[in-house]
Amino acid sequence: MNLILLSKEEISPDGYFAELGGIKAKHILEIHRAEINKELTVGILNGNIGKGRVLEICNGHVKLELDSFPDNPPPPIPITLLISLPRPKTLKKVIHIATAMGVKKIIFMESWKVDKSYWKSPLLNNGEIEEQCHLALEQSKDTIMPKISFKRRFKPFVEDELPTLINGTLPLVAHPYKAEPCPVGLEQKVTLAVGPEGGFTDYEIDSFKKLGFQAITLGERILRVEFAVCSLLSKIF
Amino acid sequence: MNLILLSKEEISPDGYFAELGGIKAKHILEIHRAEINKELTVGILNGNIGKGRVLEICNGHVKLELDSFPDNPPPPIPITLLISLPRPKTLKKVIHIATAMGVKKIIFMESWKVDKSYWKSPLLNNGEIEEQCHLALEQSKDTIMPKISFKRRFKPFVEDELPTLINGTLPLVAHPYKAEPCPVGLEQKVTLAVGPEGGFTDYEIDSFKKLGFQAITLGERILRVEFAVCSLLSKIF
Repeated sequence: MNLILLSKEEISPDGYFAELGGIKAKHILEIHRAEINKELTVGILNGNIGKGRVLEICNGHVKLELDSFPDNPPPPIPITLLISLPRPKTLKKVIHIATAMGVKKIIFMESWKVDKSYWKSPLLNNGEIEEQCHLALEQSKDTIMPKISFKRRFKPFVEDELPTLINGTLPLVAHPYKAEPCPVGLEQKVTLAVGPEGGFTDYEIDSFKKLGFQAITLGERILRVEFAVCSLLSKIF
Repeated sequence: MNLILLSKEEISPDGYFAELGGIKAKHILEIHRAEINKELTVGILNGNIGKGRVLEICNGHVKLELDSFPDNPPPPIPITLLISLPRPKTLKKVIHIATAMGVKKIIFMESWKVDKSYWKSPLLNNGEIEEQCHLALEQSKDTIMPKISFKRRFKPFVEDELPTLINGTLPLVAHPYKAEPCPVGLEQKVTLAVGPEGGFTDYEIDSFKKLGFQAITLGERILRVEFAVCSLLSKIF
């Protein structure tokens, strides 16, 4: 954790203190090796960033005295990331890297090569996604939670919702074939669609192209989905 | 596996067939769902790329009939990657992404914030590193193994070996403070040094700078080492 993310419930009503337990306190004690008076970077969930000082350590709990919160979180990157629902293990990694790099809108969608069983993963409903986002924000010193949604059916999503969604953005679809090299250093809003392992089907690619999506590629090397997302975002912005 | 990597031992002396067992055969059968006559992309370790056709499936073994190998592997990226030895779990991920992106020379080195226990990891000697490289090559459709070495002492390495190593390259060191933005789209040879979690010490950064290394940064967001490597390589090349 490069920043300790504080939820409203952890902060005292007067705003001067925070009480932390569980893995958060454990991390502060074991990784930061925090002692009394140690100063830590803290951020309020969906709010500003400042400093906290360790006031008490007791039974695995840590009490922090909070200072002012003068700093804004780092700016987000202006992108909507559409991504075919990956296998649960990869889903966590994709959420991690997208959140850590500053994506604030992530939509997981169906596509033909998405194994139907992935939609039944307990991960989708058990709070672990929120936890992954928290960890990624703490890693990247950010505080603003991304909005994550799931679109269970490809056709209605692409036909009925996507046209509005891409309005005012440059729509790109990552695809290894018949595609332009990934653009570099853009300063405009982007919608980026990333397919499943095995890629989008021709029908899916055509659906995107009909809406004006431009096919882009990272080259002939195929990367795992989480690294493809990292690489695409690193080039585009 | 987007390519099946064949070692010399797996290919028949006349070069017409390959016999595969173990996890490689398992992967071909379960993930590629290979049946008799299915054509697969195959590559010879450190050699060319071509096609193989499934000839026999028997007791979890797969026999392939090999065609010619007309295609060169994708070009490497012209970089030497110096990286502070990360924790074993991260080491595997770093080797994966560097290999998959086409790095052919990786040097893991000591630095002050590297936990001494990492040097005792069985991972460093048990063949798992070679296995990680194979998997990454198969992922990225490459065949050329990277050269990986380990430098157990920072000072002798930096003072005695590094000056020769950086000769004819642009030497860059990734560092979050007092640094220029990461350069984009270079076409020259690069030596890139990446620090441990927690960064290089001032002494270490000064040692690099004395040799002409330029400090570069990805911005205020701190990424996990494997994603930092992916992001740096994506921008630089």
